[in-house]
Amino acid sequence: MAGTSRRKPTIVPGFKFAGISSGIKKKGEKDLALIFSEIPANTAGVFTVNKIKAAPVKLALDKLSSDKKAQAIIVNSGNANACTGKQGVRDAEDIVNSAASALGISPGFVFVSSTGVIGRPLPVQKIKKALPALAGSLSPASIKNAATAIMTTDTFPKIASKQIKIGGKTGTIAGIAKGAGMICPNMATMLSFIVTDIAISPGDLDAALKDAVNKSFNSLIVDNDMSTNDSVIIMANGALGNRPVSKRSRFYQGIKNALCDITKDLALMIAGDGEGATKLIEVTVKGAGTGSDAEKVARAVAGSMLVKTAVYGKDPNWGRIIAAVGYSGAEINEEKIDIYLGKVKLVSRGTGTGKEKSAAGFLGGKKIVITIDLGSGSRSARCVTCDLTEDYIKINAHYTT
Amino acid sequence: MAGTSRRKPTIVPGFKFAGISSGIKKKGEKDLALIFSEIPANTAGVFTVNKIKAAPVKLALDKLSSDKKAQAIIVNSGNANACTGKQGVRDAEDIVNSAASALGISPGFVFVSSTGVIGRPLPVQKIKKALPALAGSLSPASIKNAATAIMTTDTFPKIASKQIKIGGKTGTIAGIAKGAGMICPNMATMLSFIVTDIAISPGDLDAALKDAVNKSFNSLIVDNDMSTNDSVIIMANGALGNRPVSKRSRFYQGIKNALCDITKDLALMIAGDGEGATKLIEVTVKGAGTGSDAEKVARAVAGSMLVKTAVYGKDPNWGRIIAAVGYSGAEINEEKIDIYLGKVKLVSRGTGTGKEKSAAGFLGGKKIVITIDLGSGSRSARCVTCDLTEDYIKINAHYTT
Repeated sequence: MAGTSRRKPTIVPGFKFAGISSGIKKKGEKDLALIFSEIPANTAGVFTVNKIKAAPVKLALDKLSSDKKAQAIIVNSGNANACTGKQGVRDAEDIVNSAASALGISPGFVFVSSTGVIGRPLPVQKIKKALPALAGSLSPASIKNAATAIMTTDTFPKIASKQIKIGGKTGTIAGIAKGAGMICPNMATMLSFIVTDIAISPGDLDAALKDAVNKSFNSLIVDNDMSTNDSVIIMANGALGNRPVSKRSRFYQGIKNALCDITKDLALMIAGDGEGATKLIEVTVKGAGTGSDAEKVARAVAGSMLVKTAVYGKDPNWGRIIAAVGYSGAEINEEKIDIYLGKVKLVSRGTGTGKEKSAAGFLGGKKIVITIDLGSGSRSARCVTCDLTEDYIKINAHYTT
Repeated sequence: MAGTSRRKPTIVPGFKFAGISSGIKKKGEKDLALIFSEIPANTAGVFTVNKIKAAPVKLALDKLSSDKKAQAIIVNSGNANACTGKQGVRDAEDIVNSAASALGISPGFVFVSSTGVIGRPLPVQKIKKALPALAGSLSPASIKNAATAIMTTDTFPKIASKQIKIGGKTGTIAGIAKGAGMICPNMATMLSFIVTDIAISPGDLDAALKDAVNKSFNSLIVDNDMSTNDSVIIMANGALGNRPVSKRSRFYQGIKNALCDITKDLALMIAGDGEGATKLIEVTVKGAGTGSDAEKVARAVAGSMLVKTAVYGKDPNWGRIIAAVGYSGAEINEEKIDIYLGKVKLVSRGTGTGKEKSAAGFLGGKKIVITIDLGSGSRSARCVTCDLTEDYIKINAHYTT
């Protein structure tokens, strides 16, 4: 499934990108990316809540707890540098130092990020050897190379961008992402890197990023199931020359909205590119008594293997949907529940309407919309996932060996 | 995979069984079972915690809230009678009354149970028409027919039994079960019916059943993911003529142990017969600080699709196991975690031992044992599941239509 999005413009003033092969991946695919800002940029990040954190995540959390500036993010795919003990942290630091030399910047301004197999030593020498070539191939127009180099089982690079007016100037925000595990309900590393030339304070950048991630990637990934490496990092280098935007500025909401649009676009691309996926599934819950109940229901339905397989089989099996509503843990009243597949009402007040045949038509498409009205309040939630197919099994039954 | 168990003796004094085809299933397979006690039996039950409960479950809960006696359980497969509204309850009551007439007993002593597709009206006429033939085929030796008639996608009938001494007499406990959805982490109806000729008070029977279910079926099924129909019902008719056993009796523990053995046997058969399963997976967690932490870890690992697919692919991918430990929500210390596959230590204090090749040998078998030592305490837990294969997808992508 191809995601569709605003793919242009992908030039962000003051930023350069690169993506090359360093030999980590066996078949010579791109596996090393660099995102570079010509000047130190304000930086914020959101990371996995998994208690097992990969070495680069530990390093990034450390860096962001003191300085909130970055100039470069080195990302390798093919090796997660997770569960690699103290050596893993030393290896990540080694890459930071070598990259700083190659780029002629302070090691404090270099972040690293990794995705791939857990528990194998990071191939440090391969990466270090490739750093000069990586730095040498930096270009403002190479965002697609970087987006490609961070892929694992993704089938296409994921890029989204947007421009917004900040007073008389036009600022740009662009992001790349990789996902591709069956994101919900199970863990799969999700990485996203976002850059903008808009000047904004680190604290406000952090708040805007957290808000966007909550509305996008977090409706895609059940928190408890995050991988050891999940990371979203944003750099704002201020090359636009605007007066730094703060929360009180009239431009702040615009930046938040644009960031949210970009992360939602990337989240949809990730869901549509789930391993083996043939369909994108959007679960919308409304009429919940509380926001938490709405979320529980959306996540239970989107996380149900039986719902996912039914969608794959083009089977309007609403019994599996309502059963997931029932075990979600949310407060519900069976006799108030309506369920729609596309525009067809399959369940009215807890019982079937007999319209399976008209609903089956909606299952032929690439995007399946399931709407559940709990009839018990006014709160809503949304979760995005993909169908579950034989190819998911094939991909995951033979991933490391 | 065939489960192995104590299949004899399956004669329980005072009980008769039957299983025939009533035409609910399209291909003429057995789909209607009857478990009958010649005299009213003390009865207890454990039912789904899903907030959406099938009509027969609602009825059974009602019955057990007042009288705790039963003489007959009518079970149909092929239709769950769930999400069928008030008509579903009336239909279940209709079957109760007709069965009571056919058996010449009080309707108050008749329980019904259903499993199959959700949301379709119960084919009442087919069932009612078949009741005389069902009653006519009752026999003390027909437990296998009953075990067969309750199957949905199960590939073999599940029966376990055990004899125990109660003073000078020998009492028998026998149970049947059906499962076959991929039990953990997703919902699939699990039904089990257990009978014994041992006299025991309803309250103590209830306590013994709850204890056994907690140690067996509940280590197989994540509570929140129970289906709309899950039911375990036990009948104790006292035909043995023993003095009724109470909690203070020296025989009570023996009954509890036997009940636990039987339900564990049935649980293992269910896991081994998971839809499309080729391997049984036993996850044992020890060294946890609390029992709750041990359970969280066992369930997260056993519920991980990535772990299940790795086992299917004979891939000793411990990264997926430790990642599930990390997102389980349990308190853990990465640097204290050991992980074993069979007897091979794959992870020592949070990092890999490099013994994947020796561990791979263990993945060739039918039973895979994963042991996780959290190194943080003395509490333990166990969860049983099965691998995830392409056949699971095939079975579930085309179940109702």
